[in-house]
Amino acid sequence: MAPLLISSTQNPRIKQLITLQQRSQQRRIEHRVVVEGARELQHCINAGFSVETVFYCPALFDVNKLHNTGFECVEVTPQVYDKIAYRGSTEGIIAIVKPRFLSLNDLELGDDPLIVVLEGVEKPGNIGAVLRSADAAQATAVIVCDPLTDLYNPNLIRSSIGAIFTVPCVVCSSEECIRFLKENNIKILTAQLQDSNLYYNTSMRGATAIVMGTESTGLTQAWRDAATAHIRIPMRGALDSLNVSVSTAILLFEAVRQRLL
Amino acid sequence: MAPLLISSTQNPRIKQLITLQQRSQQRRIEHRVVVEGARELQHCINAGFSVETVFYCPALFDVNKLHNTGFECVEVTPQVYDKIAYRGSTEGIIAIVKPRFLSLNDLELGDDPLIVVLEGVEKPGNIGAVLRSADAAQATAVIVCDPLTDLYNPNLIRSSIGAIFTVPCVVCSSEECIRFLKENNIKILTAQLQDSNLYYNTSMRGATAIVMGTESTGLTQAWRDAATAHIRIPMRGALDSLNVSVSTAILLFEAVRQRLL
Repeated sequence: MAPLLISSTQNPRIKQLITLQQRSQQRRIEHRVVVEGARELQHCINAGFSVETVFYCPALFDVNKLHNTGFECVEVTPQVYDKIAYRGSTEGIIAIVKPRFLSLNDLELGDDPLIVVLEGVEKPGNIGAVLRSADAAQATAVIVCDPLTDLYNPNLIRSSIGAIFTVPCVVCSSEECIRFLKENNIKILTAQLQDSNLYYNTSMRGATAIVMGTESTGLTQAWRDAATAHIRIPMRGALDSLNVSVSTAILLFEAVRQRLL
Repeated sequence: MAPLLISSTQNPRIKQLITLQQRSQQRRIEHRVVVEGARELQHCINAGFSVETVFYCPALFDVNKLHNTGFECVEVTPQVYDKIAYRGSTEGIIAIVKPRFLSLNDLELGDDPLIVVLEGVEKPGNIGAVLRSADAAQATAVIVCDPLTDLYNPNLIRSSIGAIFTVPCVVCSSEECIRFLKENNIKILTAQLQDSNLYYNTSMRGATAIVMGTESTGLTQAWRDAATAHIRIPMRGALDSLNVSVSTAILLFEAVRQRLL
């Protein structure tokens, strides 16, 4: 059977897709999110997410490249694809997927978990970039302490290159997160400039959470008080901060180094 | 004397500013570049660059905050500022500055230089992000091996948060760069996945260059052949690469760690 072909930008399914892309609230109501790009979708499929529909433009993407796990394929014309492509990329593939929302108790901590906590990091692009590094470092989880964060924001998915599907990620409040870490005897290392030790002189072996605040305001007092140790990256130049995804990667890979030595 | 006030978007000086912002070729011809943002401009002034004119919107920026080293100040109305603001930021300050173009021989290597080399990293945002980390790690220089790179692209200045003014930066060919490093007995560590050692098992003490290629295609054979050692960051997850600015930061701060221990 030939796949469905959509050639009108006014088609109701195209309109639904665009609404899901643009509106966080609609994603919540429908419990459906939009995943764009070949790498992102492949990681999503590999991680066992439920893919409902793949819209693809045959001029740009060979749908046979995807290992189809039972989703519907809908062909669209280049004109329709131009309308739905959020990124202005030319990858030719966009899907509707069922998201997963994990809670802290869903996390499988295993031995010596390595957790990244982000407090107040609002930019989806930064959260995505942290997820990408967390994937590479094989972190146990990323916990985002800002209950309003939408993990399936298109910019977050994009900047994560699909790591949002490969790294367990939880959204909760700082209070819940601190309680969880303490209950599970996970060492809390807060990145802050005041009263802190150089990060590489601090042990990151054993169960460890690396806690990052924003570039501008840093961490709240609750985290500073809850900390097992305060750590800092030496800032040796004229600028006073690093991008949060860069700082997180430096700290995560120091943990990897210490653990693999 | 009250500063000049410009209230028309058709003013020839506003048109000149916009042309400089948008056109790399015009920047080259006039030997003038555009710097937007308070932090960026402050780093530029502190680094002794020659600032010609500062356009500011008093509703958004208090020009007295800048340490004026003899530049002309031009007040603009909010409407004019909206027209010239490239970033859609609300900082209210944009300047015309004389750029500096260093050659390899201008670099002051000192003892044990730590150099970052970027080959084929085309995105200005990535080069800027690397400069920001290079500033923090107090690297000796960043060398961009792609003769077409425009160091004063607005996106590069922005993502560097002004580090383009604090870190010596040279644009040249890979061939010139390899010759320079060898002549100065600088160890060449190439980041590549094949035939490589874990980066933290490789000494980065002494004169060292860390050489990074693109995420997609990596380094050219000339660099692989010229390498003193090949190094890699362990990729332990599902994704196959890190953002180049993240990888560079991980390697740079390992060099800092080894050198400060």
